[in-house]
Amino acid sequence: MFKAGIIGDGYTAAELLRILAWHDEVEVVSVLSTENVGRRIDDLFPHLTGFYSLECEESNVERLMGRCEVVFLALPHGLSVNIALRLLEKGLKCVDLGADFRLKDLRLYREYYELEHEAPEMLHKAVYGLPEIYRDKIKNSDLVANPGCFPTGAILPLVPLLEAGIIKPDGIVIDSKTGVSGAGRTAKPASHFCEVNEGIRAYGVGTHRHGPEIQQELSFAAGVEVDMIFTPHLVPMNRGILSTCYAQLAAGIEAGAVRQVLEDRYREECFVRVLPEGTMPHTKWVYGSNFLDIGIYVNPGSGRVILVSALDNLTKGASGQAVQNMNLMLGLNEKKALMVAGVHP
Amino acid sequence: MFKAGIIGDGYTAAELLRILAWHDEVEVVSVLSTENVGRRIDDLFPHLTGFYSLECEESNVERLMGRCEVVFLALPHGLSVNIALRLLEKGLKCVDLGADFRLKDLRLYREYYELEHEAPEMLHKAVYGLPEIYRDKIKNSDLVANPGCFPTGAILPLVPLLEAGIIKPDGIVIDSKTGVSGAGRTAKPASHFCEVNEGIRAYGVGTHRHGPEIQQELSFAAGVEVDMIFTPHLVPMNRGILSTCYAQLAAGIEAGAVRQVLEDRYREECFVRVLPEGTMPHTKWVYGSNFLDIGIYVNPGSGRVILVSALDNLTKGASGQAVQNMNLMLGLNEKKALMVAGVHP
Amino acid sequence: MFKAGIIGDGYTAAELLRILAWHDEVEVVSVLSTENVGRRIDDLFPHLTGFYSLECEESNVERLMGRCEVVFLALPHGLSVNIALRLLEKGLKCVDLGADFRLKDLRLYREYYELEHEAPEMLHKAVYGLPEIYRDKIKNSDLVANPGCFPTGAILPLVPLLEAGIIKPDGIVIDSKTGVSGAGRTAKPASHFCEVNEGIRAYGVGTHRHGPEIQQELSFAAGVEVDMIFTPHLVPMNRGILSTCYAQLAAGIEAGAVRQVLEDRYREECFVRVLPEGTMPHTKWVYGSNFLDIGIYVNPGSGRVILVSALDNLTKGASGQAVQNMNLMLGLNEKKALMVAGVHP
Amino acid sequence: MFKAGIIGDGYTAAELLRILAWHDEVEVVSVLSTENVGRRIDDLFPHLTGFYSLECEESNVERLMGRCEVVFLALPHGLSVNIALRLLEKGLKCVDLGADFRLKDLRLYREYYELEHEAPEMLHKAVYGLPEIYRDKIKNSDLVANPGCFPTGAILPLVPLLEAGIIKPDGIVIDSKTGVSGAGRTAKPASHFCEVNEGIRAYGVGTHRHGPEIQQELSFAAGVEVDMIFTPHLVPMNRGILSTCYAQLAAGIEAGAVRQVLEDRYREECFVRVLPEGTMPHTKWVYGSNFLDIGIYVNPGSGRVILVSALDNLTKGASGQAVQNMNLMLGLNEKKALMVAGVHP
Repeated sequence: MFKAGIIGDGYTAAELLRILAWHDEVEVVSVLSTENVGRRIDDLFPHLTGFYSLECEESNVERLMGRCEVVFLALPHGLSVNIALRLLEKGLKCVDLGADFRLKDLRLYREYYELEHEAPEMLHKAVYGLPEIYRDKIKNSDLVANPGCFPTGAILPLVPLLEAGIIKPDGIVIDSKTGVSGAGRTAKPASHFCEVNEGIRAYGVGTHRHGPEIQQELSFAAGVEVDMIFTPHLVPMNRGILSTCYAQLAAGIEAGAVRQVLEDRYREECFVRVLPEGTMPHTKWVYGSNFLDIGIYVNPGSGRVILVSALDNLTKGASGQAVQNMNLMLGLNEKKALMVAGVHP
Repeated sequence: MFKAGIIGDGYTAAELLRILAWHDEVEVVSVLSTENVGRRIDDLFPHLTGFYSLECEESNVERLMGRCEVVFLALPHGLSVNIALRLLEKGLKCVDLGADFRLKDLRLYREYYELEHEAPEMLHKAVYGLPEIYRDKIKNSDLVANPGCFPTGAILPLVPLLEAGIIKPDGIVIDSKTGVSGAGRTAKPASHFCEVNEGIRAYGVGTHRHGPEIQQELSFAAGVEVDMIFTPHLVPMNRGILSTCYAQLAAGIEAGAVRQVLEDRYREECFVRVLPEGTMPHTKWVYGSNFLDIGIYVNPGSGRVILVSALDNLTKGASGQAVQNMNLMLGLNEKKALMVAGVHP
Repeated sequence: MFKAGIIGDGYTAAELLRILAWHDEVEVVSVLSTENVGRRIDDLFPHLTGFYSLECEESNVERLMGRCEVVFLALPHGLSVNIALRLLEKGLKCVDLGADFRLKDLRLYREYYELEHEAPEMLHKAVYGLPEIYRDKIKNSDLVANPGCFPTGAILPLVPLLEAGIIKPDGIVIDSKTGVSGAGRTAKPASHFCEVNEGIRAYGVGTHRHGPEIQQELSFAAGVEVDMIFTPHLVPMNRGILSTCYAQLAAGIEAGAVRQVLEDRYREECFVRVLPEGTMPHTKWVYGSNFLDIGIYVNPGSGRVILVSALDNLTKGASGQAVQNMNLMLGLNEKKALMVAGVHP
Repeated sequence: MFKAGIIGDGYTAAELLRILAWHDEVEVVSVLSTENVGRRIDDLFPHLTGFYSLECEESNVERLMGRCEVVFLALPHGLSVNIALRLLEKGLKCVDLGADFRLKDLRLYREYYELEHEAPEMLHKAVYGLPEIYRDKIKNSDLVANPGCFPTGAILPLVPLLEAGIIKPDGIVIDSKTGVSGAGRTAKPASHFCEVNEGIRAYGVGTHRHGPEIQQELSFAAGVEVDMIFTPHLVPMNRGILSTCYAQLAAGIEAGAVRQVLEDRYREECFVRVLPEGTMPHTKWVYGSNFLDIGIYVNPGSGRVILVSALDNLTKGASGQAVQNMNLMLGLNEKKALMVAGVHP
C-alpha cells in the first residue's frame, strides 16, 4: 500500500479524495490545509462521510516527510515551487495540479502569472502530465505538472492532427465552455449562483492563462509556432468542459484522414473515446469520470474541421488525470481507481 | 461470476448498467427492450462507451432462460407480474424495480394503479426490498419488490421512531422534493427542460402513488394505521430526493431520544448516514451514490420533530438499492459495487 | 413626477430600479451605496443599460433631503432604524425592505435578530406592508415595513382561512422552497454556484427569522396564538418561492369552504390569483412579476388542507411589493409599473 | 387600437402574447391553434392569467378576416406560405416568425428545408425583418420574414464590419450557445430536462438551417460570398443566445476601428447596446428583453477580432423583434411595448 499526501483543501483536493477512496493500492494519509486545520475531512466534505476519518493538518510540508511516497499539490499558482523542491529533495514524488511547472518558457510564466519563477531550472525537468502524449516520461519522473483543464480538452484532439500534418497550424480557433467548479471553491461574485445560473458569458477573452499552455503543446506537436486563439465561456453547470476546435485541412488532405488519424492514435487508450460518425459528445456523459470524448466533423467541400471534446474538468481535467499520472509514477496499473462510467443522467 | 439480465431500457436500466460495470462478481449478459432492439448499449447510453458491447434484445422473457441467475425488471407498472412469474418458475431470482409487488393490499393497488393484479397471491410472497428493514427476508427471497424512490426516503428516517413509539402515529407530513429523472426517460411535456428549469412546483398533490406505499410501511412499523400526508415537488435537477418529514414527539419523550434511536438503529448500516447535530443533508452529497443521509431537528419546547433525508433517486432510490438487494439474494457482500462516494460538487 | 431615493445596492435595489424604470409617475433620482460610490448604475447592473445614467452616491441620508418624496431602504437588518427616523422627521415617506419594523414584539426582535431595537416606539407606528391585508393603513402611513419574502407566501394563503375560522390554528406546517437571490448579492460559500446547483437542502431549520414574522400575522388573523412550524429550502434557481402549507379543516367545515373563502377574498385583488381546481402553481409562471398564485387541495376524508403558493421573491416578495406600497402611499394607482406577466418559459 | 391575430400556440406565440399584453395600441383578438382549440389562453399559459380571456380557435385563416389588421405566423416551416398569401390578398399585414420567407435563394431553401417552395415569387417581395438593417423597407412592407434567433445574434455584430470592409470576408467562425426554448415547446428526447441539464453539447454541426441564413446576410453586407462556419450548442438554460464571432482584421486596419464602426452604427439604435471596453455580455442581462448586447475584443498583434453578442432568443430572437417589425409596419413607435429591462438576476 502506497501512502499519499494532499496539500490543499479545495475542489481538486476533494476530488482526489473521492477517487482515491476506492483505490486499493494507495491510501491518503494526510491533507494539509491553511484554513481548515483540525477540521475533519467529512465535516468539510460531507459527501466523503464514511470514507475518511482524517483531520486537516497544518500546511507545513515537513509533516509529510516519512509518511508518504507521493504528494499531490493542489494549490494556487506560485505556491508549489518551493514545496515541490523540498519534497523532491526528500525523495517524494510530486504531482502538481497547479500551473507552476506547466510552461517551459519563463517569459510566458512571468507575463501570464505575473511572478518570477523561483526555480526556473525545474521547468524542463518537470514532465507535462498528459499520459496519452508523455506516458513514458511520466513513468520515469518525480515531478509531473498536471495539465490545466482547458488544455487537456484542446490538446488531445488537436495534437495527433498537427503531428500528422493534416491540419494547418494557423487559424485555429478553440471555443471552450466550462462548468463553474473550474473556478474553485472560494466564494467570489463571479461564482455566485445568481450571476451564473440561467445565463452564459465569455470571460478572459484573449487573456486567459490556459492560452499559452495550449499554444505550447500544439506548437510542440506541429513543430512550428501555431497560430491559435482560445476563448473560455462559463456555463451554468458544476462540471464539464466542452471544447469546439476549428481548424482547416492541410492542402491535399482528404476529409477522411481526420477520423483515421484520431482513431489510430487513440485506439489503445482507455480514457480517450473517439465517438462514431455523427455522434457529438455531451459533457454529462463523462460527468465524474476520467474519460475524454471526441466528436469529429469535416466539411469535404470547404475543408473545415470541427473537433468537439468533452471532459470533466475536475476528473480528466484535474484530479483524475493526477491519479492517472500517480499510477504511472508508482508503476501501478494506469487505470486503477479510474474505470468508472460517467454519471448520466 | 453470476449472470444478470435486465428487462427495460430506461433510466433505471442505464443506472443498473453503470453500477454493475464495476461489479466483479456479476456480469450483465442481456438487456431486453421494446423500442431499441438491435441497438448497442453504448449507442443508446454513450456514457457507457467502453464498458459494454451488448445489443438490446427483443423483449421476450424466454431469451433470458438458461443465460442468467438473476433478472432486474425495470418496467412500467402492470407489466412485471407475468414476467416475474415465468422467471420464478424457471428458478431465476427477480428484483422488480416497478410497483407491482410493493403493496400488500390488493384494493390499494387497484385504486392507485387502476389495474386488477394478475397474481394477488404473490403480493405476500414478494419481499419489500429495504435491506435496512427486511435484510433477512431478502436474503431468502426469490422475488424482491424494490421500493419506490420517495418511500425509501420517507420510510428509513421514520420507521425506527415509530417502532420505538417515540413519535405520534398521526399528523405526519412528508414533503418531498425530487429531481426529474424520477419521471423516466420518455419525453413528456412535464419533463421538457423549459417547463422544469428555473422553477419549482408541487404535483400529484394528495394522489401520488407512493403515498399508500409509505403509509403501508409506516403503519407496519407503528403497529397501527398512521395518519400521514405526502406531497412531492419537482426540482430543477437531474437526480436527488430530499424529504422533509414532520412529526410530533410522543407524550413524555425527550427531544434527545430521536437522535439516540436513529443513531442506534443505523450505526452498523453502511448506506445510512445519520448526520451530526446541526448538519442537514444536501442531495448533491449523495449524487450517484447509494447513501441515504438523515438530518435531525427536534424543538424541545413544542416537541416538533423534523427529519430531513437525502438520497439519489436512481441509486438508493432505485438501481443501487436493487443491486444491494441482488447482492443479498446471491449471498454476496451487500456492499459490492456500491461503496463509492457521491459526486460533489 | 414623484422623486424616489434608494438606499442600498443589492438585488432588491436592482429590482426596484428595474421596475421603476417603467413607472411613469415616479423617477429614481438617487441610489446610496457604501461599496460602489461613484460607480454608474449600468456598470454595476448592466441589465439596466440604457435606463439610468445615475452614479451611486455616498451612503449619507442627508443627501436625499429635498430631492425626493419617498425612500426605499434596502439594507441589512439593524441599519434602517435611525435612517428611517431621520427621513420621517424631514417628512419623507419610507418603505423599509429590511426586517427592522416588521415584528411588533420587541422580545422576538431581540431574540431573532440579536439586537436591541433603537426605536421601539416605532414598531407599532410602522404598518406591515401587505396591501391585500393592510391596504387602508398603508395609504395613510409614512413608514411601511415591507414583508419578508417567505412571510408573503405563507400569510396570504392562510390568513383568510384563519380569519374565517375554517382551519385549525394549530399543527400548521409551512414548507418553503426558495431560489438563491433571496440570500442576497454578497458572495458567500452557501451561494456558490457549485454548492447550490444540482441539489437541494433545508436550512435554518427551526430557527429562520421569518418564522416569528409568519407566526405574528397568522396569530393576528386567528385571534389566538397559532401553532406552526416553518422550514425553508434552497432550490437551484435564481428567483421564486413555493410554499406548501399544511393545515387541518376546523370541525364541521366542508372541504369546499376553503376555495370559497379564498376566491371571495381575492376576487378583486389584481396581484393574487387563485388558480382553478386541479392547477397547482409553478414559480416560473410568476418570474419577474408581482403576482402571487395559490393552488388549493383539500382531502374531503381526512380534512387535510394543502395550499401551495408561488411568488417571485424579488418582486412580490420584495421590490414589487415595495412599489405596490409606494403607489398606495403616494395616492397613485396601486398597479402602476406592476402589471406585467411572468417571464415564462 | 389595432387588432392582431396569432397563428400558432408554441413558445413564440406565448411570448407574443406576453409582450402584447402591455402594448397600448395593439390588441390580440384571436389565437389559432391545431391542438388546443377551445382551450383558454390562461389555461394553456398560466403565466398569462389575468391578461387574456381568449380561447384558442380552430386553425382556419378565414377566421381572421375582417377581425384584424396584422397577423403573426408562428408555425413550423413550410406551413406559412399559403396562409401568408391568403392574408396578403385580403389586405392583412403578416409577420412570419418561421423560415419560409427568409432565404432569397430557392435552391438553398430546397436543400436545407427539403421542400419545394410554394410561392417562389414571394421570396424577393418579403423583407428580412432586421429593423436595424432594413428599417425603411419594413415600414413599407406587408410581409416581413422575421429572422431566425441565431442569425439575429450573428448578423448584427458582423454586418457593419463587413459593410465597412474592416474585417476579411473569409475564415469567419460563429460559435453560438443557446437556451432550450429555441427548440420549441413540443416534448422531444433532446429537450428532456435530464438530457440537457448539467451538461453542454454541440448539435447540427455543419448542417444547421440557420447557417445559410447567416451566410446570405453577411454576403449581402460584404458584397461578396463570405466564407464562414456556424456551430450551435445547447446550454442548460431556458432563454438566451450567446454568439462568439471570430474574424480577422482586413489588411491595414487598426484595432480601434472595430469599436468605432460598431458604436457609430448603433449609437441611435435603442435595442442594440455596444458594451464598454472590457465588458463582455451575459445572456441573463437581456433575459425577457428585446436588447442585443455586443462585446468587443481585438488583439492588436494578431488582428484577431472577437465579437460576442447576447440576446433572448424568444424576444429579440423571435417575438420581440416581431413586435418591433409590427410597430414599424403599422406606423407606430418602434419601441412600443418593448422598452423593458432584462430580468436579472
